[in-house]
Amino acid sequence: MQRKLRMGMVGGGQGAFIGAVHRMASQMDGRIELVCGAFSRSPEKSIASGLSLGLPRSRCYGTYEEMMREEARRPMEERMDFVAIVTPNRAHYPAAMATLQAGFHVVCDKPMTFNLDEARKLVKKVQQTRKLFCLTHNYTGYPMVKEARQLVQDGALGRIRKIVVEYPQGWLATRLEGTGQKQAVWRTDPKQAGATCCIGDIGSHCANLAEYITGLRIAELAAEMTTFVKGRPLEDDGNILLRFTNGAKGVLWASQIAIGRENDLNIRVFGEKGSIEWHQQEPNSLILDWLDRAREIRRTSTPFVGAAAAANTRLPAGHPEGYLEAFANIYRNFAAALTDFLRGKKVREEDYDYPTVHDGLRGMAFLDAAVRSGRAKAKWVKMAS
Amino acid sequence: MQRKLRMGMVGGGQGAFIGAVHRMASQMDGRIELVCGAFSRSPEKSIASGLSLGLPRSRCYGTYEEMMREEARRPMEERMDFVAIVTPNRAHYPAAMATLQAGFHVVCDKPMTFNLDEARKLVKKVQQTRKLFCLTHNYTGYPMVKEARQLVQDGALGRIRKIVVEYPQGWLATRLEGTGQKQAVWRTDPKQAGATCCIGDIGSHCANLAEYITGLRIAELAAEMTTFVKGRPLEDDGNILLRFTNGAKGVLWASQIAIGRENDLNIRVFGEKGSIEWHQQEPNSLILDWLDRAREIRRTSTPFVGAAAAANTRLPAGHPEGYLEAFANIYRNFAAALTDFLRGKKVREEDYDYPTVHDGLRGMAFLDAAVRSGRAKAKWVKMAS
Amino acid sequence: MQRKLRMGMVGGGQGAFIGAVHRMASQMDGRIELVCGAFSRSPEKSIASGLSLGLPRSRCYGTYEEMMREEARRPMEERMDFVAIVTPNRAHYPAAMATLQAGFHVVCDKPMTFNLDEARKLVKKVQQTRKLFCLTHNYTGYPMVKEARQLVQDGALGRIRKIVVEYPQGWLATRLEGTGQKQAVWRTDPKQAGATCCIGDIGSHCANLAEYITGLRIAELAAEMTTFVKGRPLEDDGNILLRFTNGAKGVLWASQIAIGRENDLNIRVFGEKGSIEWHQQEPNSLILDWLDRAREIRRTSTPFVGAAAAANTRLPAGHPEGYLEAFANIYRNFAAALTDFLRGKKVREEDYDYPTVHDGLRGMAFLDAAVRSGRAKAKWVKMAS
Amino acid sequence: MQRKLRMGMVGGGQGAFIGAVHRMASQMDGRIELVCGAFSRSPEKSIASGLSLGLPRSRCYGTYEEMMREEARRPMEERMDFVAIVTPNRAHYPAAMATLQAGFHVVCDKPMTFNLDEARKLVKKVQQTRKLFCLTHNYTGYPMVKEARQLVQDGALGRIRKIVVEYPQGWLATRLEGTGQKQAVWRTDPKQAGATCCIGDIGSHCANLAEYITGLRIAELAAEMTTFVKGRPLEDDGNILLRFTNGAKGVLWASQIAIGRENDLNIRVFGEKGSIEWHQQEPNSLILDWLDRAREIRRTSTPFVGAAAAANTRLPAGHPEGYLEAFANIYRNFAAALTDFLRGKKVREEDYDYPTVHDGLRGMAFLDAAVRSGRAKAKWVKMAS
Repeated sequence: MQRKLRMGMVGGGQGAFIGAVHRMASQMDGRIELVCGAFSRSPEKSIASGLSLGLPRSRCYGTYEEMMREEARRPMEERMDFVAIVTPNRAHYPAAMATLQAGFHVVCDKPMTFNLDEARKLVKKVQQTRKLFCLTHNYTGYPMVKEARQLVQDGALGRIRKIVVEYPQGWLATRLEGTGQKQAVWRTDPKQAGATCCIGDIGSHCANLAEYITGLRIAELAAEMTTFVKGRPLEDDGNILLRFTNGAKGVLWASQIAIGRENDLNIRVFGEKGSIEWHQQEPNSLILDWLDRAREIRRTSTPFVGAAAAANTRLPAGHPEGYLEAFANIYRNFAAALTDFLRGKKVREEDYDYPTVHDGLRGMAFLDAAVRSGRAKAKWVKMAS
Repeated sequence: MQRKLRMGMVGGGQGAFIGAVHRMASQMDGRIELVCGAFSRSPEKSIASGLSLGLPRSRCYGTYEEMMREEARRPMEERMDFVAIVTPNRAHYPAAMATLQAGFHVVCDKPMTFNLDEARKLVKKVQQTRKLFCLTHNYTGYPMVKEARQLVQDGALGRIRKIVVEYPQGWLATRLEGTGQKQAVWRTDPKQAGATCCIGDIGSHCANLAEYITGLRIAELAAEMTTFVKGRPLEDDGNILLRFTNGAKGVLWASQIAIGRENDLNIRVFGEKGSIEWHQQEPNSLILDWLDRAREIRRTSTPFVGAAAAANTRLPAGHPEGYLEAFANIYRNFAAALTDFLRGKKVREEDYDYPTVHDGLRGMAFLDAAVRSGRAKAKWVKMAS
Repeated sequence: MQRKLRMGMVGGGQGAFIGAVHRMASQMDGRIELVCGAFSRSPEKSIASGLSLGLPRSRCYGTYEEMMREEARRPMEERMDFVAIVTPNRAHYPAAMATLQAGFHVVCDKPMTFNLDEARKLVKKVQQTRKLFCLTHNYTGYPMVKEARQLVQDGALGRIRKIVVEYPQGWLATRLEGTGQKQAVWRTDPKQAGATCCIGDIGSHCANLAEYITGLRIAELAAEMTTFVKGRPLEDDGNILLRFTNGAKGVLWASQIAIGRENDLNIRVFGEKGSIEWHQQEPNSLILDWLDRAREIRRTSTPFVGAAAAANTRLPAGHPEGYLEAFANIYRNFAAALTDFLRGKKVREEDYDYPTVHDGLRGMAFLDAAVRSGRAKAKWVKMAS
Repeated sequence: MQRKLRMGMVGGGQGAFIGAVHRMASQMDGRIELVCGAFSRSPEKSIASGLSLGLPRSRCYGTYEEMMREEARRPMEERMDFVAIVTPNRAHYPAAMATLQAGFHVVCDKPMTFNLDEARKLVKKVQQTRKLFCLTHNYTGYPMVKEARQLVQDGALGRIRKIVVEYPQGWLATRLEGTGQKQAVWRTDPKQAGATCCIGDIGSHCANLAEYITGLRIAELAAEMTTFVKGRPLEDDGNILLRFTNGAKGVLWASQIAIGRENDLNIRVFGEKGSIEWHQQEPNSLILDWLDRAREIRRTSTPFVGAAAAANTRLPAGHPEGYLEAFANIYRNFAAALTDFLRGKKVREEDYDYPTVHDGLRGMAFLDAAVRSGRAKAKWVKMAS
């Protein structure tokens, strides 16, 4: 029996959405336990949050700097192994740098940093410290996304020609931030969210999903960024044409003003021999079309899916696995890597199928290009490499 | 009892797809009868086709010029009232001009002409001759498309912000024209189809549908036109960003290489108060989302749809009405206008809810702009007015 | 060029639903023309209906008896070939007997007769007169129903184990007949509809569809017939357990009080090697599941369907074919048989794939058994053969 | 901060399906921890399973009798609070009786006991010992099932007329038990599963779901139980007509030979004013139809659902919640009751919205009636009360 991995958390105090998700996801498989945290910029709130989670007072920290310092002093068999960073975007970079500096591994929410420059520095830091770094691009954790990726890798679809990836939401169709709603306030605030709202928050998942499934790389893009709700300083809608390195073309759009859309990330990939379609809101089905036979629907946990999908499944077919299970797959794969690392194995993160600091860098380069293109008169803007 | 309207046909001989559709659609409601035709550029094929359709030999013409001449000589109570032009694109313009010149009304398949210049001339000719001119942008004939348009007109969705319209097909994913398949041969041939294949054939329906439903006008666009199948002189895929006159933004894409897609025209329109979604392959459902209540599904022929939809329906709810019924609605509305015209009423075509020569002109301007944008370095290209 | 077949009509006057359907369906393919009719029990209404349909006054008859007599006197090259009987149930039998007696072929709406005894007599009459008799169990006209039947015939599903067939409607959820609505009045009236309302009107389609697709025969059944709306003399809901001759089991239910259901006929068939599912409201998809591979969706008019489906299709894939097209397939197949018959060929009706008088007899036996079972204390009641 | 509740487990050793589900579900919200277990009838396997789950050796018991004895001796602040019984059906009753006898609360998988007599005794035992007893009829834990129940309770659907509830699976379409597959072996074995396989395993969920949503009680039924796979001693398919106490009628069917069906539990409820439809495989949508307005789709976690659904949700709309989350809701509601109980509050279990021993008794009465009816010649068999 392997021991449980010990997780510290930065951010995710009472009232936060994504912190609770990280806790449920990380603990689902019984391989990770939360042992400490600095849950808020307010030391009082941080401690109160920690206590309400059942942590001992001694491991509810007022600041993450304190947490790094104190945890590093604890005996090896007790101190945290890694830190989950679940703050608003602004704090990702400093918290991640501090964590790495203190000698801990990192799980970080996305987008990875506040800007492209920070992302580049973070990549270097990870390389220097040789710690593991997992970015929770959680939608790649779904079994049917794994199946899609494997189909492309196996050549089943042939050369990829076209990708259409969408992420419509409707929750910001009105000026919700004016009501003080916490999520809306920080995501529409350039000081907390960065240079982009809609594309940064959700468009980034589109780009990541497209590259993850196809293995292609976005080369250049043509973006139209729009703010529909008056008084909002960042865009709440983006339409983007894509060109991929192999000559494939794409359409990517995301919106926060698409009334009625909940969290409707979806992707279609068209190749020379077949095509696929996947929807996050019905994640256990993968639609396949073929040149030479009728449409096929592959389903999570049936005997008809490949090894990658099967390895990221917990339940028999027909027992819906959802958002938390997909998120937990990111943690489970990271836990496998970290367990191996702690046993002294040489770990190549890309072998464990979780998003790394390099995916984070690409994400920031995508946001940078989208923002630049939104302001450009020329049709095409190249993504920085 | 009103008499049946008498239809002549140009094109649509044996083996043609769209000619048979026009015949079934025009005759569905018992108000139009086919009385003559020039069905092929080959006089022999034309006559054989006419005979096989049960026409008397005397009204199976070798050429449409002959048909115009001979029909004009027949007594009023016998000669054709209007001509349905169902040839490949190239011949639309000369046949339409000849028909108008000979004093007959016109129903014409789309795209209306071979290029923008012809379209402008045809508009003038219609205005000069004061004949009726119906363009069979058939997808606007569906009851739920009418419902969508009425919802926008009634302000139910509020100001329109975003439109996403798609038309994926997969039938040209391989070099089908190399096999001699008739439809593929002419549509991919610049001499017969014009400057565009995919956008001309199906992207044009997207633009028309978006403008029809929303009442907005495309102002400028940014297009990426791609030929994926080697050796094909025209594009088989197009991705286009749209800007509408009211500030709305849009995404339009069409493809003929989207394997598995049959005829998957669909549209989503997002407004300030609600949004709609419609799919041509399941045409009797209209999906509505609202700021303040749960998703609604309106269905053809139920008591819950408006007058426009109800007026374009033949069957009780749950008895699926399809492509032919929608196509027949175009003819039925045109027949109503022509009947009124023949009775001496002053007819404003826009009151009868069928596409006119002006819609045809806009369609050609859209194709012109798309082709120009596809070659441009600047992001935005304006549509000619 | 073969001549058009000449159709007379009994019933279907102004305001009737099914008469208009028969006219549109019969004329869709240009092989049948309406030449005369006795459209109402009221001679005035009959004549007015005929005139409004564009018939000459001389062939608008006051009664069907008159029509039979007068048409029989017309010259062969002019008189009607067959009669479409589209009255309420009560009149099917006498009109059909009179038609056969007068020497004409018959197309009859369902249920075929008012009771089982009439059905048996009608079978004999057809056999004696050697006329063609087509019963418009129209739902078997859909291409994907043909595909399903062919799959079973070809053994693709293996031995059939279980059939679930449903027909929910909601239009009689309130006492609509109290408002005078014509359809509701006669269907809920035992004098016009017979011993059953819901099972007779729509449950009969379930039984027919199940037997058509599987080739099996219902042997015995256990029925629960319920009247939910107070004051209604016939049942508006029925739940039935089925046993088929080969040992297969089934569930059949129909309802007219299922609020929100339009015309939701659907069937699932489970075999030893695979299973199928089909829904009348989305008729162009057939869902297939297999023991050894993932779910498959076959679609009308794609290259992936068999000969029977292909032969009953008019349009390319993705151009939805609906209720009228399926109904027209019944007429088209009947027209093929009648054309052959008139040319002197020996016609075996079962070779032409349309429902015959024998299907009508089975339908009446099913209704008879359902009504008997509804009153029985014993679980199982046998169907008369 | 309340302390975590301490759970012991009986059954659920390595290779078992449902034990792992109980562990993930119980721990999802951080309110319950697994502290001990007797995981297998084999002491060696039990201990190995416990160790692999990270339990200390001292709390991995060889038998559940030992666990009851030893845990009862531990100090109050350490010993288990309740026992989750996740064995095959046969052992539910003795384990539950022993647990109650030893003074612990119970969570028990379903069906509750091996037969109706045991169920009655268990009800008495619970009443005598005054312990809490939760039966994991997990499908009632879904938010949209709660919404459906609330709609009925609020009278939104009016008086309920008809219920159709189905549970098709395909996993036993072949003789899987012949391969030694563990789940198949015990479920098809009368000695381990009891007098029924299909209806006991999954039909029981149908009955429970129908009664839970509607608040009605099944009064009598007519069942057809069939074994399709040769050599199988218990039925693998069941079709049942239902009569409810208020006069409502129903159809219930379950199957294990429905090829392609994974775990397709679904229900439709038709009332006088509206109707609902829900599918377990797409659990976050509830379809509503109304007499007086268009179809509505309510979705988990949107603002448009009621308090009961909202209280059983963890994530924002569009973040799919699945089987584990629904299962966890049962545990969460039980944990709330147990926490109150331990604080000395008077707990009425029915106020906490989890299934109790009384639901278990009704389940066994349903199985008893179904088995009796399957053998009966009379149509209707009454459910024991």
